[in-house]
Amino acid sequence: MTFDMTQGLRVPPLGRKLKLGFVGGGRGGLVGNWHFGGVRLSGQWDVVAGALSSKPQTALASAKDWSIPPDRAYTSLVDMARIEAARPDGIDAVTICTPNAHHAEAAKTFLSAGIAVIIDKPLTHSLETSLDLAKVAQDSGCFVAVTYPYIHHAMIRQARAMIANGAIGQVRQVLAEYVQDARVGPDDLSNPGTAWRRDPSTVGRTSTTADIGTHAIHLLEHVTGISATEVRADFHICGGPKTLEDTAFVKLRMADDVPGHLWITQAAAGNYCGLRLRVYGDRGGLEWDQEHPEQLRYAPLDAPQQVFHRGHGGGMLPQAEALSHLPRGHGEALTDAWANLYSEIGIALAARQADIHLPEGQVIYTPLEEGLRGMRFIEACADSHEAGGTWVKF
Amino acid sequence: MTFDMTQGLRVPPLGRKLKLGFVGGGRGGLVGNWHFGGVRLSGQWDVVAGALSSKPQTALASAKDWSIPPDRAYTSLVDMARIEAARPDGIDAVTICTPNAHHAEAAKTFLSAGIAVIIDKPLTHSLETSLDLAKVAQDSGCFVAVTYPYIHHAMIRQARAMIANGAIGQVRQVLAEYVQDARVGPDDLSNPGTAWRRDPSTVGRTSTTADIGTHAIHLLEHVTGISATEVRADFHICGGPKTLEDTAFVKLRMADDVPGHLWITQAAAGNYCGLRLRVYGDRGGLEWDQEHPEQLRYAPLDAPQQVFHRGHGGGMLPQAEALSHLPRGHGEALTDAWANLYSEIGIALAARQADIHLPEGQVIYTPLEEGLRGMRFIEACADSHEAGGTWVKF
Amino acid sequence: MTFDMTQGLRVPPLGRKLKLGFVGGGRGGLVGNWHFGGVRLSGQWDVVAGALSSKPQTALASAKDWSIPPDRAYTSLVDMARIEAARPDGIDAVTICTPNAHHAEAAKTFLSAGIAVIIDKPLTHSLETSLDLAKVAQDSGCFVAVTYPYIHHAMIRQARAMIANGAIGQVRQVLAEYVQDARVGPDDLSNPGTAWRRDPSTVGRTSTTADIGTHAIHLLEHVTGISATEVRADFHICGGPKTLEDTAFVKLRMADDVPGHLWITQAAAGNYCGLRLRVYGDRGGLEWDQEHPEQLRYAPLDAPQQVFHRGHGGGMLPQAEALSHLPRGHGEALTDAWANLYSEIGIALAARQADIHLPEGQVIYTPLEEGLRGMRFIEACADSHEAGGTWVKF
Amino acid sequence: MTFDMTQGLRVPPLGRKLKLGFVGGGRGGLVGNWHFGGVRLSGQWDVVAGALSSKPQTALASAKDWSIPPDRAYTSLVDMARIEAARPDGIDAVTICTPNAHHAEAAKTFLSAGIAVIIDKPLTHSLETSLDLAKVAQDSGCFVAVTYPYIHHAMIRQARAMIANGAIGQVRQVLAEYVQDARVGPDDLSNPGTAWRRDPSTVGRTSTTADIGTHAIHLLEHVTGISATEVRADFHICGGPKTLEDTAFVKLRMADDVPGHLWITQAAAGNYCGLRLRVYGDRGGLEWDQEHPEQLRYAPLDAPQQVFHRGHGGGMLPQAEALSHLPRGHGEALTDAWANLYSEIGIALAARQADIHLPEGQVIYTPLEEGLRGMRFIEACADSHEAGGTWVKF
Repeated sequence: MTFDMTQGLRVPPLGRKLKLGFVGGGRGGLVGNWHFGGVRLSGQWDVVAGALSSKPQTALASAKDWSIPPDRAYTSLVDMARIEAARPDGIDAVTICTPNAHHAEAAKTFLSAGIAVIIDKPLTHSLETSLDLAKVAQDSGCFVAVTYPYIHHAMIRQARAMIANGAIGQVRQVLAEYVQDARVGPDDLSNPGTAWRRDPSTVGRTSTTADIGTHAIHLLEHVTGISATEVRADFHICGGPKTLEDTAFVKLRMADDVPGHLWITQAAAGNYCGLRLRVYGDRGGLEWDQEHPEQLRYAPLDAPQQVFHRGHGGGMLPQAEALSHLPRGHGEALTDAWANLYSEIGIALAARQADIHLPEGQVIYTPLEEGLRGMRFIEACADSHEAGGTWVKF
Repeated sequence: MTFDMTQGLRVPPLGRKLKLGFVGGGRGGLVGNWHFGGVRLSGQWDVVAGALSSKPQTALASAKDWSIPPDRAYTSLVDMARIEAARPDGIDAVTICTPNAHHAEAAKTFLSAGIAVIIDKPLTHSLETSLDLAKVAQDSGCFVAVTYPYIHHAMIRQARAMIANGAIGQVRQVLAEYVQDARVGPDDLSNPGTAWRRDPSTVGRTSTTADIGTHAIHLLEHVTGISATEVRADFHICGGPKTLEDTAFVKLRMADDVPGHLWITQAAAGNYCGLRLRVYGDRGGLEWDQEHPEQLRYAPLDAPQQVFHRGHGGGMLPQAEALSHLPRGHGEALTDAWANLYSEIGIALAARQADIHLPEGQVIYTPLEEGLRGMRFIEACADSHEAGGTWVKF
Repeated sequence: MTFDMTQGLRVPPLGRKLKLGFVGGGRGGLVGNWHFGGVRLSGQWDVVAGALSSKPQTALASAKDWSIPPDRAYTSLVDMARIEAARPDGIDAVTICTPNAHHAEAAKTFLSAGIAVIIDKPLTHSLETSLDLAKVAQDSGCFVAVTYPYIHHAMIRQARAMIANGAIGQVRQVLAEYVQDARVGPDDLSNPGTAWRRDPSTVGRTSTTADIGTHAIHLLEHVTGISATEVRADFHICGGPKTLEDTAFVKLRMADDVPGHLWITQAAAGNYCGLRLRVYGDRGGLEWDQEHPEQLRYAPLDAPQQVFHRGHGGGMLPQAEALSHLPRGHGEALTDAWANLYSEIGIALAARQADIHLPEGQVIYTPLEEGLRGMRFIEACADSHEAGGTWVKF
Repeated sequence: MTFDMTQGLRVPPLGRKLKLGFVGGGRGGLVGNWHFGGVRLSGQWDVVAGALSSKPQTALASAKDWSIPPDRAYTSLVDMARIEAARPDGIDAVTICTPNAHHAEAAKTFLSAGIAVIIDKPLTHSLETSLDLAKVAQDSGCFVAVTYPYIHHAMIRQARAMIANGAIGQVRQVLAEYVQDARVGPDDLSNPGTAWRRDPSTVGRTSTTADIGTHAIHLLEHVTGISATEVRADFHICGGPKTLEDTAFVKLRMADDVPGHLWITQAAAGNYCGLRLRVYGDRGGLEWDQEHPEQLRYAPLDAPQQVFHRGHGGGMLPQAEALSHLPRGHGEALTDAWANLYSEIGIALAARQADIHLPEGQVIYTPLEEGLRGMRFIEACADSHEAGGTWVKF
């Protein structure tokens, strides 16, 4: 059996959509919106079941919002896992987008029922629960993916391919920053989405580092193909009073002695989703900004700068063209990246179900191991900060 | 009966999705992609039927791509109209996105069967067929909408509301441009999508004016609330040899003696989807660029410029917040605008079906009359150009 | 005798500076500032004499501001011309930067005394006085230059050379705009600099067209090497009430059937000195913006865009490198362009005095004939507008 | 006696220009160009003497380039100091812009002769020689200024005044970066300007840190009014092989527990003079980029961003308007900042000569103490790096 992928990432290559359930993501949550947008746009999935909130009434109302049939609108995820696993038309996978502290339990419930799991980053709220989850996952033999959406932008795929092709020569220094301003003012702890992100018992040892720092390190390693080996982190509270950091400066030692730096903050007024990447090699540089995702700036040494625009042709490489759906200039943005994420995960899962081998790099998603790596990054940063800014391997 | 719109534009306000069919838009076409992306993301529609190509094999293969059930994958749109009208679960509406010359016949077929029609702009390929279609539409009593997606960008809604609120005072001059580069080189007439756009028998008296000029004038009038009354147009061929214009300069006389100008071209290398709007009043100015749709530049007279970013708060007005789904900086772009279009059309149609009155301005779509106005604009430009650049009322 | 130009444009190639006088430009005026900045920075001139204002006290005070020796601070330009012509160390040239209506008389006075003249654009306030001045200039045999500073930006020289070299292929359409906002509000006629620009007896038949429109057409023709042959102009008043236009839309017919367009306004809030140029050929496009003069955007067809930055190497051509004084990124701007202007005029005049032939294109300045062409453009626009927007040759 | 400063910074307030000499800066050097441009444009100085190169022939040829009279074109700076000090029309000050290792000796020579000294940053090539110079300066009682040009940009003065006025509330974190690409490739040590900058015996313990890092820390402290108290620095070689660092990451502890970060590199392809500043407080943020010096981005919390443009009015504060010479949009850049520097130094020196007290903040320049602080910063960074990235007070 083979796939027909000639019609692109938004057409199910086996001729049928997969069935998806959701845990979390309902009314009042932040992340359901972009998960669900990506799922819808991907064309690879039908959302048919959900336990969308820990509050039963919200769970049921949210299911109606998403056109989930009433009989598959669950208020207990244990029930959901059991019933869906038993249905002949049960879900192929479940997305976990609850607060972090519930990821592990929820994921283990579904894995134990033999259901594939898609899990919002960071993997869980602590390294310990993550390792436990990893063990269960391995035992289950189930497919697990972690949702890091930014690597699914077409121009990030372009940057990765250009670096791999030697466009900037050998990488010599790397910088990423993820800069927001939601935490400049005092926290509104009456907002549950804020409250759990500021409470160590639910968010873990770090807040902003876990929330957005994990994106930055993941993107940096993904694009460059170079792993960080050590971190030295300083945490700060630069916005309103709070228990955990809203700002982190993280110096990196990457493989091959490449230095790197991350600046992570949610307390910089006038920055919204400022995830920016700058990579410099001995023959050129590349710069990308998530708020202007359609452009990739390329500076070959001693020549005019080039600006690549998403689309087909015009210097785009096949790996990036595959993630490009609208003509150049007809803007794609974050929803489109989420759709690519759900397309690539869907295709990878379908390939596994149908026992089809996908060529290396044809579709990309973040496996559990990389999710674990994100947890180790959080731990290493927290360890480094607590020790006064020492170097910590991870 | 009332609507529940508290969960936003992507939740069906009556608790059930509408059923949509497509005519055209299948494999090999350009526009199906964004229509279908918008439909999927809108959350208001299920696509359940289609006659997606004039070629039977392509029609059936395309239906499979889109997960349309085989029994509702039609090769004849006459059959489709008849059968869908008769089914108890028949489509609520059909989108027509064939080449322009087939719009009228296709639309009339469905209107005659009592099915609501959503039709890609321009309305048809000639004023005559458009007027004929309008007559049939009126007789049918059916809902008709024309798809002008750019008015569904959140920041365009913001600009419109700011101007209405007096942010720039009285409007004194207006400029729009829509600049692309697909027609710089020689036309590849072996590409059917190019061929029909270059053949007067299928595209009408104009090519680029119909294709993108209609967007520009529509957006300008929509945002300012001021109608153009006369045009003076010059057509040019600035790219490879072709039968019809690839470039138009159109001077406008707007109501209240406001001068305006449109520059429309598909022969300006390095421009992709450069739809840009600039409006100046006696107390300020506003500028917007479709390739950076998340920002709106506002210049109050004698004060620092302001840059509004899509999101909630931060100066956003309620009309624009309603079209905003992701947090500020988490980019929305063209797919999101198309989703807003299909949400607003879906809600308007549902309101009509349920006999619910929507407050003025709560949802906005382009009715048939405005589609007709686009055709009159095309005719007026062609008349003006052919007369050597005279002023022509429209 | 030969020149030594190896040290660049800011070193006098004959080893001695020229002596310059000024008429106009003193306290309270707008233009003296940039003329004088350019003169100072150019390194080619000493300012040694001046009749800097029509008001004697202002003339003397202004001379002191500029460190002009008291005995060469004149209150009568007739005296100045006579005395300077007679001095063995008299001025080599005089810059006329009075209000336009005084240009002709002032220039003729110095030309009749055998003194070279540098004259601010537009040449005068009427075609008639310009033709009269041209006649006197021709009879005098003196050097005359008109100051159009924008052609002295390094990146404009780069654009001109790239187009001449075929970088964009054959030019197919051209656009320029010059957009400001100083005239949005009501005119303050108590400001003399405003008053004369709004009075037809001192500014001529047009106001904004003469003031900034002449820059736009001059730049467009200079960069493309293609002359406009006909104009069709509409004048409008889009800001506060006034006698003459503050806005003009000018359609151009260029040689070789190339269409062009100018948009000229001083009534567009949020635009300051928005002189922008866009030129498209059959193999690429070029875009430049005076407010970001260090970059030149180049779009070769079907390839990534390129951004050239002023400096040496990195794609810069020798003609543009000659106008580049600071390293790339160490910003040059309008004062530097004015310095290039005064350097190039100084070198051209020195060459003439020393009877040295400069290779074609080694230094560029705007001769009287091009100043006259600017006047014909103004007349043609005014004629076209008054005739209701007819095509007028010029 | 009082000053007349009503005509702005480019008019000598006592009615006469000061006389300036130069040591260094001649042919083949990099920095002479911008010093001399600034001097010329400032209107406050005549350059009348110079020992422009350590090579006698170059010194004399360079003097001719700059129109320095032959009898004041020196080949020995000892002679120059002696003779100029003795002349009744001797120089009021001398600018030292030799390689760093010669600063101290040169400056001491002139100070000992009672001549005021203007000295390029960094003060010298070692803390020891700097302290020695400071001692001599103090004993001499002479005026000394150090040339840090970026604080003389109008929009930097604006940022400083806005922060002082509370526009962003209490400062909570600060970032600066100075990013160039001149050192990506291998060093060309046959270029003397490169050679001395890479040789520890002439440049000191650091190369890039001394060259551009000192600018970044100086600008950051100047704008925020907050002093750094400790640094933790990592040096790297990210470009071609070399003896000293081309890249430094410097974490800062500022007063009041404000964290800061500097990224300094000359090995980031596609960056030319990328000195960028970002300052965030509890009520807003400010961002500035030296390559676009006319704009200042201001983000008041929870409101639309504002973009201030240099000029008069439009939100500009008086301190910044004083540094603004051309109308808004008529670009000023680095030469204009250097001119402001030489204007402010000239006025300060004139005030001292005439025994006039200037109100606090009316003119700003960098005194010797701040130059010394730059040296301490270099030492602290080198100490920190050599100790493996420890915190070092300075």
